[in-house]
Amino acid sequence: MISQDTQFCIVGLGLLGGSYAQALKLKGYKVTAIDINADSIQYALDKGWIDDGNSDGTNLLENADCIVLGLYPNIVVDWIIENQDKIKSGCIITDVTGVKRGIVPEIQSILRGDLEFIASHPMAGREVSGVTYSDPSIFKPANFIITPTDKNSEQAISFISDLSSTLEFNRTTTLSLQQHDEMIAFLSQLTHVIAVSLMNTNDNTHLVEYTGDSFRDLTRIAKINENLWSELFIMNKDFLLKEIDDFLDEMKRFRDTLEKEDVEEMKRLFIQSTKRRKLFDK
Amino acid sequence: MISQDTQFCIVGLGLLGGSYAQALKLKGYKVTAIDINADSIQYALDKGWIDDGNSDGTNLLENADCIVLGLYPNIVVDWIIENQDKIKSGCIITDVTGVKRGIVPEIQSILRGDLEFIASHPMAGREVSGVTYSDPSIFKPANFIITPTDKNSEQAISFISDLSSTLEFNRTTTLSLQQHDEMIAFLSQLTHVIAVSLMNTNDNTHLVEYTGDSFRDLTRIAKINENLWSELFIMNKDFLLKEIDDFLDEMKRFRDTLEKEDVEEMKRLFIQSTKRRKLFDK
Repeated sequence: MISQDTQFCIVGLGLLGGSYAQALKLKGYKVTAIDINADSIQYALDKGWIDDGNSDGTNLLENADCIVLGLYPNIVVDWIIENQDKIKSGCIITDVTGVKRGIVPEIQSILRGDLEFIASHPMAGREVSGVTYSDPSIFKPANFIITPTDKNSEQAISFISDLSSTLEFNRTTTLSLQQHDEMIAFLSQLTHVIAVSLMNTNDNTHLVEYTGDSFRDLTRIAKINENLWSELFIMNKDFLLKEIDDFLDEMKRFRDTLEKEDVEEMKRLFIQSTKRRKLFDK
Repeated sequence: MISQDTQFCIVGLGLLGGSYAQALKLKGYKVTAIDINADSIQYALDKGWIDDGNSDGTNLLENADCIVLGLYPNIVVDWIIENQDKIKSGCIITDVTGVKRGIVPEIQSILRGDLEFIASHPMAGREVSGVTYSDPSIFKPANFIITPTDKNSEQAISFISDLSSTLEFNRTTTLSLQQHDEMIAFLSQLTHVIAVSLMNTNDNTHLVEYTGDSFRDLTRIAKINENLWSELFIMNKDFLLKEIDDFLDEMKRFRDTLEKEDVEEMKRLFIQSTKRRKLFDK
C-alpha cells in the first residue's frame, strides 16, 4: 500500500502526468518528474507540483517507489528497455495508456524480475494537451481501470487500487487486457471515428450559425490529438475495425429502411435505441 | 406587426405548442388552443397558459389573428383542408414543422386567398414530449428559421419575425424551403441517425459503468419520438439519404485508412476534423 514515504516519479509530464503530479503533491507525497522538455519540468517546479525533475532521470529513478509512465503508446516499451537498469529494486511501474494488449505482455516479458509492471488506464482527459492544462479535478467524475495479468501480484494490484483512491477517481474497476481493449474500441475509439468522419463528410462549416447543442455535443471529440490517437487506433486495429464494420452495417440497415419507407421497422429501431440509451442516463 | 390586440390560437398543444402558449400569455396576449386531447386543454387552462380551448375550434378559429400549427407533419395539410373555412379573414398561419418542402407548397396552393401561410421552424425541443413538459425557456438559446416563398407578403414575414422576437428566440434567420431541408438533413437528421445506429449496433448496455461523458453526449439524441421522427425522415428522404451516403463513404474511407495503417492520412483526417470543429466552438 501507499505510505507517507512512498516516492512517485512521473515520466512524461503532459496533461495526465501533470495532473497525477498535482494530485499526489496535494496529498503530501514526494513527486519527481522526467520529461524531454525542460520547460515542462520548470513549469511544474515553479508551480510546486514536483519536488525535483530533469530530462534523463538522473537521481530520480533510483529513488522512486512507484513510476507512472505518462508517455505516448509507441514509446512506452522502448522507455522500459532503455531505463529499467536504473530503477530501484521493488519499484511498481504503471502507465496511463489507452490500449493494453500492445504493450503490457511485451513489457512484462522483458522486465527485470525485481520490478513489477501493472497496467492501468485513467479514463480522464481534455481536448487540449500539455502540462499547463493539467488539472486533477478531471479525475473526480472518471473511471480508473486496472488491467492485471497473471504476472501481477496481489500486492501490486492493491497498490494501484490505492493510487486510484488517492487520485480521487470516481470508480476503480478491473478488466483483462482483452476486455479493456474491446470496451475502449466501442465506447471511446468508435465514437471518435464517428465524430471525425462527421466533421470530414462535407465542408459544412457555413452551417455554423444554425448549429444546436446536439450537433456540438456529438462532434466535440472531433477535436483530437492526431499523434496520440493514430497510435492508439493502430494498436487496437482488430477490435476497432470490427466495431466500425458493425456500426456501418447497422447504419446501412437504417438507410435501407428509410429508402423503402418501412415505417414500422424505423419505429422499432427508434424504440430500441431509446430504451437502450435510457440505461445510460446518469 | 403584432399588436396588443393580436389573438393567437395554438393548434396542437404539445411540448412546443404549450411553450408558445406560455410565452405569449406571459407577454399579455390572448391565447387559445385546440387539441384533440381534452386533458391537455384542461392542464393549460388550469396553469393559466391559455384563455380558452377546446377540441374542435368552435368559437376559436373565427377570432384568431394568428394560428400556430403545432401538429405532426403528416396531419398539417389535412388540418388546413378540414378547417380553413372557419378561419377569420386575414389570419396569418404558421407552423413548427421540422421539414418544409413536403408541406409548404401544398398548403399555399390550396389555402383560401384571404389567408396567408408562412412557414417557420423553431429549432428548439426536449427529449420528452407533451404539454406538461412545455417550457418557454427552451427558446432562449435557439434559432428561429422563417422559410418564406414567393406566395408570402413582406407584412407576413415581418409578423413572423416579430413573433420570434416575442418568443425570445436567440436568432431569427430566413432560408428557402430547399436550404432549410438540406441544412436540417445534415445538422439534425443525420446526427439522429448516427446516434440511433450507434445504440443499435450491438447491445453494449453492459458497458454502462465504463461510459464517460463523450459517449453520453454523442448518444443523448438516440432517445427519440418514433412517431414524429419517422414522419420527418420520410418527408426529407432524398436529402437525408444523400447525407447518410456521404457520411458512410467518409467513414469507410477512414476504415480503409486504418486497415492500411496509413498513419499520415489518418493524421491529415484528424487535423482537418479538429480545424473544422473549432469553428463550431461557441
